[in-house]
Amino acid sequence: MAEVPYELFYWPGLPGRGEYVRLILEDAGVPYVDRGRQSAEEGGGIEAIVALIEGRLPGFAAYAPPALKHGDLMIAQTAVICRYLARRHGLAPLDEVHDLHAQQLQLTIADLVKEVHDTHHPIGTSLFYEQQKGEAVTAARNFLKHRLPRFIDYFADVLDANGGDVLVGSEVSYVDLAMFQTLVGIGYAFPRGYAEVMERAPGLSALRARIEARPRLSAYLSSARRLPFNEDGVFRRYPELDRPE
Amino acid sequence: MAEVPYELFYWPGLPGRGEYVRLILEDAGVPYVDRGRQSAEEGGGIEAIVALIEGRLPGFAAYAPPALKHGDLMIAQTAVICRYLARRHGLAPLDEVHDLHAQQLQLTIADLVKEVHDTHHPIGTSLFYEQQKGEAVTAARNFLKHRLPRFIDYFADVLDANGGDVLVGSEVSYVDLAMFQTLVGIGYAFPRGYAEVMERAPGLSALRARIEARPRLSAYLSSARRLPFNEDGVFRRYPELDRPE
Repeated sequence: MAEVPYELFYWPGLPGRGEYVRLILEDAGVPYVDRGRQSAEEGGGIEAIVALIEGRLPGFAAYAPPALKHGDLMIAQTAVICRYLARRHGLAPLDEVHDLHAQQLQLTIADLVKEVHDTHHPIGTSLFYEQQKGEAVTAARNFLKHRLPRFIDYFADVLDANGGDVLVGSEVSYVDLAMFQTLVGIGYAFPRGYAEVMERAPGLSALRARIEARPRLSAYLSSARRLPFNEDGVFRRYPELDRPE
Repeated sequence: MAEVPYELFYWPGLPGRGEYVRLILEDAGVPYVDRGRQSAEEGGGIEAIVALIEGRLPGFAAYAPPALKHGDLMIAQTAVICRYLARRHGLAPLDEVHDLHAQQLQLTIADLVKEVHDTHHPIGTSLFYEQQKGEAVTAARNFLKHRLPRFIDYFADVLDANGGDVLVGSEVSYVDLAMFQTLVGIGYAFPRGYAEVMERAPGLSALRARIEARPRLSAYLSSARRLPFNEDGVFRRYPELDRPE
């Protein structure tokens, strides 16, 4: 029986939260269709994502991308998709306790990602960055000073308590991939803030490097499928939001 | 064998995210220890929550409350705790597809709750409301105009597509309890904004009323265990943030 293909629905042109899903698919080496990056003629492109958001696709409705279609199943929410895929492809602990802790860590990473996003959109996503730049500067200063160090200390402690190799269980899981992507994203958005905060967490830096070196991921990261960060996604580099030199 | 008791760790004095956990325990009619509301002499109170946050409790570390201790298991993140309890007490769909959709909806409710929180703390949680009141007024206006209607339309569509009785599956689940609590909270925080937006979602209003009338929940809601909303939690009533009259 032919394998039913995975179809990812996410905005074209930015890594964003869709990238958390892609990393699992790429590390697992399973084929997938990236609907947002198909052409409109193939039924993809931005129109497919708009159709998802407007509830015009068959299957269970998604509030926002990313969404994953797998046969008749349609699911959304990054953490739900990641766990679903990871459990099917050897990238998630399957026993109950580690599964619960993996979910907990994935949602804590999602909280951190949301706080990064909100540094450039503190007032609302319906306004442009330029309309809330002053507030963003204050929000980013608060984030780098009070929030990011607490998150980094937490994940460093979790890694350390688990032996230092992976965040949960005994094998690399989707949580480690998500941590990798989040660290890379924060390093892009706040180069100086990142360098400073990571001085307190050499174990996390080493984890980032180990994930980056995984053969399939390494090949993916240097391929054209890997979208560069830019100023349209979660992780944006606005120099005025970084720690002053 | 005596049942191992559940222990909830959450800030005393505010319903907040801990209330999502309490509603499941109360609706299921299972006993639990509310550690934050115990006295310091009993090993509870605010000191127990601070110990949790500072990583001084045994078991897997939590970034933030709520956390749940159940025997040797310690888990955090509201959505993870709610699903864990609900699956054990007949308040969650157990088949894979409905389980995935329940998780998806619970996380979408969590996103809405976070956006409500951020209306009064757009710049950062390390500052007082009074230090970001001007920004909060703008953020709340955006939330009520652009975000809340989209969330309400989404949940109303999901409810409708599922037949109108419950949000997912065929029985009341933790997702319906979370929707109830979120609607009650938004109604507290923004009485005028809530009345206006709910005109478009009579089905959700009816769901709220059905959940409120469940015997065990109804008894709980009129008991002293149910904490009133106040200006310390997620849902705060600052009249200047509501829709103008």
